[in-house]
Amino acid sequence: MFENKDDSSTSIGSLGEFGLIDHLTKNFKIKQKSTVKGVGDDAAVISCDSKKEIVVSTDFLLEGVHFDLSYVPLKHLGYKAVVVNLSDIYAMNAEPTQITVSIAVSNRFPVEALEELYAGIIAAAKTYNVDVVGGDTTSSTTGLLISITALGMVNKGEAIYRSGAKENDLLVVTGDLGAAYMGLQVLEREKEVYKVNPNSQPDLEPYSYLVERQLKPEARKDISGLLKELDVKPTSMIDISDGLSSEILHICKSSKAGCNLFEDKIPLDPQVISTCEEFNLNSTTIALSGGEDYELLFSIKTEDYPKIKANPNLTIIGHITDEKEGIHLISRAGTKIPLVARGWNALKDNG
Amino acid sequence: MFENKDDSSTSIGSLGEFGLIDHLTKNFKIKQKSTVKGVGDDAAVISCDSKKEIVVSTDFLLEGVHFDLSYVPLKHLGYKAVVVNLSDIYAMNAEPTQITVSIAVSNRFPVEALEELYAGIIAAAKTYNVDVVGGDTTSSTTGLLISITALGMVNKGEAIYRSGAKENDLLVVTGDLGAAYMGLQVLEREKEVYKVNPNSQPDLEPYSYLVERQLKPEARKDISGLLKELDVKPTSMIDISDGLSSEILHICKSSKAGCNLFEDKIPLDPQVISTCEEFNLNSTTIALSGGEDYELLFSIKTEDYPKIKANPNLTIIGHITDEKEGIHLISRAGTKIPLVARGWNALKDNG
Repeated sequence: MFENKDDSSTSIGSLGEFGLIDHLTKNFKIKQKSTVKGVGDDAAVISCDSKKEIVVSTDFLLEGVHFDLSYVPLKHLGYKAVVVNLSDIYAMNAEPTQITVSIAVSNRFPVEALEELYAGIIAAAKTYNVDVVGGDTTSSTTGLLISITALGMVNKGEAIYRSGAKENDLLVVTGDLGAAYMGLQVLEREKEVYKVNPNSQPDLEPYSYLVERQLKPEARKDISGLLKELDVKPTSMIDISDGLSSEILHICKSSKAGCNLFEDKIPLDPQVISTCEEFNLNSTTIALSGGEDYELLFSIKTEDYPKIKANPNLTIIGHITDEKEGIHLISRAGTKIPLVARGWNALKDNG
Repeated sequence: MFENKDDSSTSIGSLGEFGLIDHLTKNFKIKQKSTVKGVGDDAAVISCDSKKEIVVSTDFLLEGVHFDLSYVPLKHLGYKAVVVNLSDIYAMNAEPTQITVSIAVSNRFPVEALEELYAGIIAAAKTYNVDVVGGDTTSSTTGLLISITALGMVNKGEAIYRSGAKENDLLVVTGDLGAAYMGLQVLEREKEVYKVNPNSQPDLEPYSYLVERQLKPEARKDISGLLKELDVKPTSMIDISDGLSSEILHICKSSKAGCNLFEDKIPLDPQVISTCEEFNLNSTTIALSGGEDYELLFSIKTEDYPKIKANPNLTIIGHITDEKEGIHLISRAGTKIPLVARGWNALKDNG
């Protein structure tokens, strides 16, 4: 789906690899003062500060695995590819500063399509104040592949790991869960409708929040500052990319801890609830296993409870227990259900 | 080509994504003291030193585009994937310190194949003393994709860019050129022979150097130390991944300079010369356009000439001129031939 609808189309081969890189990167502006040298040499150069630590994270996005270009506009894809990486940086309590972007494309993409993709990448870089400092552009035999590496900086000793959760800590999540996954279900359904009747005009209005969460997610750049303001330092933190249950398991495994998660505390948007009913899906299951929420999940000491309890951005959803107690969802009916990485199957198996 | 010949084969699905990452990364040992946190969190954490700068480079390797598994053993592929990235770090005059490794694989690869690949990655990490600090493992619909990002450190202000070459500087190259490309020709020929007669036993002995340069290249980690010993600081530097002519053009473009390259000075291994004759190829063309040599190309001030002239690792192949004079190859016959990015075509067009 190329947003640029005019008929002009330039083949990638006509620019050549170096011409293409020059063409796509000429609009990149350097804003971070730590960027000594961006695109255009064998490597980017970034200045260091002994009071800081650097965090690095990398992600792959593959056509046909992570996205479907039949309903994902390339500009949105570029934006999202950056956001999913930055989310990992925020999950370390760091500020993202630079990204590198590697792209492999088949000849079916004209240069104009890559311009759309890069417009999204540049928009995200602007929103999150990061510099695009390097990358690689190559041809692929099949489709579009994007690999982004994000760098960020955190004050020395202030990185927050998955491993610091302690018994009795409270488990807190930002925002709400499950919307991105339900957005995907809505888009997949529209794609099927479109196949049968290409003239149908989909009405996505009732699903606007869901579709936006799927197509144009944002990373929680506000949380680090909010927690500083509230004078709360999480004991552990992770971002929610694969679904709540999988992230809870990561924290518990890394922290050698157990957890009780309360079903009735899981924050859900009304659109998630109504659309789950429409699709005959269990909204808890969707929140647990849907993924792509890019919210932050963290644990705090119980003494910090008063500081966060009234905050509309934060929801306490459970507490950390001793490792021996295991990792459970406490259902609305009070039943204890073991959480496993694929909450979907787990719930189906257990009730 | 999987070196592990026994019949046991474990499907990737049986381990799951997280199981797979754990399985493949459990043997990674952290050696760099700058690595605060390696694999196992949302991001790796690396300590900073105000006296240093960090360099970052990233590369994509795609099956069917950059490698052919019918004659590239996976262990060699893993090794090479690391080396090509580290070569960029050395080209900045930096020491590589960390890498992240992202891999996408289709189900046709058993876990044992990925173990081979990672064995090569770990071997290279050991040889070059870098830590594998992160990455991503995902499924692909087609083949094997590898994306590696390398980080390195250089003393503040000592990074060497492509842009510093000045008129009258001497152009110097390490090692010899064209062997990796000729190794590829030999392997491609053997593949065709194998297709016709699967029982033929190839004798690669006369091509041993070429095949090794293609399958197991090394990055020039020795040059930075050698130049310090000789008290020479290059004015510009780049690594030779796409062929000599393309790299000379990069230096000249970045430095706003011209260049005279002397055909009779281009260092060629005797196996390159004899195999070029056998394949009826022009060895100069191969050195100019073959690529994958992973040697370093740099410029030095003329006053440094006495310091390097006797060194067997270094060959002076030309000199930098004013931009207006253009970029030329001076042939053995004394003819001036303009260099273009694809030296192959340039030579064909010009005689």
